[in-house]
Amino acid sequence: MGIEAVPRTIEFVWDEGRQAAIRMVDQRALPSSLEFLEVVRVEELVDAIQDLAVRGAPALGLAGAMGVALHAANRLEDGEEGVAELRRVAGVLAHARPTAVNLQWGVEQALSVVDEALEAGLSARALARALAVRVEELVEEDESVNRAIGSNGAALLPAGACVLTHCNAGSLATGYFGTALGVVYAAFEEGKLACVYADETRPVGQGARLTMWELSRAGVPCTLECDGMAASLMASGKVDAVVVGADRIAANGDTANKIGTRMLAIAAAYHGVPFYVAAPMSTVDATLHDGSGIPIEFRDGREVIHAEGFDVDVYNPAFDVTPASLIAGIVTELGVLEPSLIGDVADGKVSPEKAAINRNQS
Amino acid sequence: MGIEAVPRTIEFVWDEGRQAAIRMVDQRALPSSLEFLEVVRVEELVDAIQDLAVRGAPALGLAGAMGVALHAANRLEDGEEGVAELRRVAGVLAHARPTAVNLQWGVEQALSVVDEALEAGLSARALARALAVRVEELVEEDESVNRAIGSNGAALLPAGACVLTHCNAGSLATGYFGTALGVVYAAFEEGKLACVYADETRPVGQGARLTMWELSRAGVPCTLECDGMAASLMASGKVDAVVVGADRIAANGDTANKIGTRMLAIAAAYHGVPFYVAAPMSTVDATLHDGSGIPIEFRDGREVIHAEGFDVDVYNPAFDVTPASLIAGIVTELGVLEPSLIGDVADGKVSPEKAAINRNQS
Repeated sequence: MGIEAVPRTIEFVWDEGRQAAIRMVDQRALPSSLEFLEVVRVEELVDAIQDLAVRGAPALGLAGAMGVALHAANRLEDGEEGVAELRRVAGVLAHARPTAVNLQWGVEQALSVVDEALEAGLSARALARALAVRVEELVEEDESVNRAIGSNGAALLPAGACVLTHCNAGSLATGYFGTALGVVYAAFEEGKLACVYADETRPVGQGARLTMWELSRAGVPCTLECDGMAASLMASGKVDAVVVGADRIAANGDTANKIGTRMLAIAAAYHGVPFYVAAPMSTVDATLHDGSGIPIEFRDGREVIHAEGFDVDVYNPAFDVTPASLIAGIVTELGVLEPSLIGDVADGKVSPEKAAINRNQS
Repeated sequence: MGIEAVPRTIEFVWDEGRQAAIRMVDQRALPSSLEFLEVVRVEELVDAIQDLAVRGAPALGLAGAMGVALHAANRLEDGEEGVAELRRVAGVLAHARPTAVNLQWGVEQALSVVDEALEAGLSARALARALAVRVEELVEEDESVNRAIGSNGAALLPAGACVLTHCNAGSLATGYFGTALGVVYAAFEEGKLACVYADETRPVGQGARLTMWELSRAGVPCTLECDGMAASLMASGKVDAVVVGADRIAANGDTANKIGTRMLAIAAAYHGVPFYVAAPMSTVDATLHDGSGIPIEFRDGREVIHAEGFDVDVYNPAFDVTPASLIAGIVTELGVLEPSLIGDVADGKVSPEKAAINRNQS
């Protein structure tokens, strides 16, 4: 048991002489069945992203890079028109969903390979190969970043900790290992984790379906609760820390994450429970001063309504913004950072060591 | 349109020469279909209460009194054994669900009629008739109390108010008109209500199914949201006040209500949105100093799990306790009371006028 029992979320598959494909766990089918979805065209990938077959900010980062590599491998033709088409497809992909900055980041990682290849005068085929190599690097970086996040976050937890989490910032939200659940897996491996409470996370149920599935599979003790029960849990003293992921972090530490996170952070502050965000530095958007500039995706109200034919108005934002003042620390691969300094760390103005939270105060 | 479009929730039906029955809206079938459930035995009523065919604290109060009257009308025999059986049945009914004090209160209202009838030496038939009369009085009192709550609460709202509510403290939670939604209906009739946001209220969905159904039927503009979205709504300035019902209020104003209420109250405080509880004085349990003594019902985890065969541990309390310090005022039929004084008002130690919140401060 352990994280080894959880399959990799998304992989770029390209055997010589065959069409390239992106193979991903189809997260719409979980927890009822473990199914894999293979796409060979970027249009299919965009559909998969918008329909939440693959989701989670770091996994979307990989999907973005893999999508560009997919087009290059299967459809890129030599010449200017081919490159223009590649850039057009990349642009569509980068904006398949608006909130998680990692999707754009992943596309940009791939496009910088394209720029270098064009400067070097590479053929379409050579460019495709360079992209495939870069994608593999990103997959490896994702796992090592997540393991570092896990280790940095686990150090924050007391022995026998019970952790509450929201949505799925697990292995399924990344290539492998997870961010918030990376902290959980690391603490579990260190023998200091007692239990995880998973918010159901309405309306799509990423906590009920995905977090409970992967934790159960890994043998991590976990209990499901509805989003509105978190304050009751905290009031009864059952929660030692809240750890969540992030979709975009502004320079001042304001953090966009799955809808419901803001309520959870406010409840944690009320009950004196430390609230941590766990995310790779690629989630930081240092171009935004604060959270007010983060675009929030609103989704179809039918995600919320269950009763056939009972059509009502629905308010259905997919994300909300948690003020930096409610966040005890942002757990990154560079350390646990003071939220207000994360933009400066991302910009290289402040070292991660100087921005680290004071453990004695936290 | 208006409250007239909403059917009465629960009625005691007894035509001379026929078996008595309790007829209620079957709230399990809403919003897909409006069905009525008739029960002729208290055991059936207990099942209906535990399975949530009828729910809501004030409606449970009526159900408690009607249940005693039902047994008296259909099964009571003259003599001591008959009375002992009536008291046994009443005891079972009073404890069908633990949190809402109104259920016990309703049973006690009926039992005091029984005591008086026994002292007066009435026959079983005459006792049954006396109970039927008392039940009709309670039904009328329920509506007049709710209309007073509505009027008192509407006075708190600004013109063009948008109100957020949790669960269903509507007409369906009472005999008629509602408590929190009584405030909404009164404000709507006065032309000062712009919109209602209804929390879905997981896991049973009383907001999504019942509040949206009755408000839609009454023509009140309403929008559904998931419980975790409330902080997002408040942050965007869309909520002028939160109004919820109550299942039991301790002497110090601590209030048990549907799970999720505590989170909502904490979020309201964070955003500076006034948070009101609307409930009849029969919801006050002055025997409890504070909310720590309120029994909380835990329900079957299967209410939360959707995926067949995916059995996981579930934390499923049906209620939580909101500290009095987060409540701006308790809207009762006697006025809008300072939460900390509600026990003293219930005990007659302080007049409702002296316990009224200072409108200028609130």
